[in-house]
Amino acid sequence: MADDAGIEGLIELMARLPGLGPRSARRAVLMLLKKRGQLMAPLAQAMAQVALTAKDCHICGNIGTADLCPICADPARANGEVCVVEDVADLWALERAGVFRGRYHVLGGLLSALDAVGPEELGIPRLARRVTDEGLREVILALNATVDGQTTAHYIADALAPTGVQLSSLAQGVPVGGELDYLDDGTLGAALRARRRV
Amino acid sequence: MADDAGIEGLIELMARLPGLGPRSARRAVLMLLKKRGQLMAPLAQAMAQVALTAKDCHICGNIGTADLCPICADPARANGEVCVVEDVADLWALERAGVFRGRYHVLGGLLSALDAVGPEELGIPRLARRVTDEGLREVILALNATVDGQTTAHYIADALAPTGVQLSSLAQGVPVGGELDYLDDGTLGAALRARRRV
Repeated sequence: MADDAGIEGLIELMARLPGLGPRSARRAVLMLLKKRGQLMAPLAQAMAQVALTAKDCHICGNIGTADLCPICADPARANGEVCVVEDVADLWALERAGVFRGRYHVLGGLLSALDAVGPEELGIPRLARRVTDEGLREVILALNATVDGQTTAHYIADALAPTGVQLSSLAQGVPVGGELDYLDDGTLGAALRARRRV
Repeated sequence: MADDAGIEGLIELMARLPGLGPRSARRAVLMLLKKRGQLMAPLAQAMAQVALTAKDCHICGNIGTADLCPICADPARANGEVCVVEDVADLWALERAGVFRGRYHVLGGLLSALDAVGPEELGIPRLARRVTDEGLREVILALNATVDGQTTAHYIADALAPTGVQLSSLAQGVPVGGELDYLDDGTLGAALRARRRV
């Protein structure tokens, strides 16, 4: 217990971050308190700055500090391919891998009757407009291989069918470095069905 | 990769916190970005406020947002007992347990010839002055049961001997809820030597 209202309030807010509980939030705040000049002040300033300037890109839904995200602003990435992802975290993961050179469309969730999330909330009509407006060649559905993910993928495929755009989805199979012995039956079956000639 | 200098800078700073690596810092920042109004802005403000106002209590070394920490400012805690701890984290742990009603003296480290940490750096002369100035009855040495901790405890005991104050240290023994089978030999030996009549 820090016995100090300001410090206790900071610990409480830090404890809401994923990966930090009350105990580790306390440890993190203690470390910040010891490095007030080198770490705490710059971190507070960076956070306030990002909180003030962060916004969703009005084209793809990526989060950035400019009106247009760096990917939508980069003309080199207008290669006619758009990758549909559920979340900004998935976009960041694909960018980290550096394997995709087109643009993105962030849904911000998946279709869910239970949570009353419909196509409008996910910007699916907006995606259909992008297909015609930007003259897209291919839409890659990079959604989770879960029931909700696949339901959403099917819905998008149906919604985009009239545009005639090429639709594709990520391949399913054995992960790189994966051992067959540890794979679930569904993945093994998918990998066998999608087998390739060598 | 967020592809945004402001957001990447924030992730880098967050990754320096204990308990957060590059991956979990990214997840934490993503969560902050999604809750810009409810969490990110208040957290940034609380952190800036604490960074600006936090200071070491000039009597005991506890960290607070006032000149005098709440414990040194509370006259009810002037009961003639001072508990010597290595770190503010130890003080917070004792306060959390709510078992001690006196005041504290935070050393901010342990004696270490290797790291050139001497008695002056740890405020041991200042502790000796507190014993006479505050008319202390008892000084409780609550230092880690490690070589450095015990060396420091011995040094403090020697330094305070001329004042005639009562010195004590935390009891060693079986932790509450502990199983003998899992205890190390040193703890078992200490518990047996310090056995009590029932």
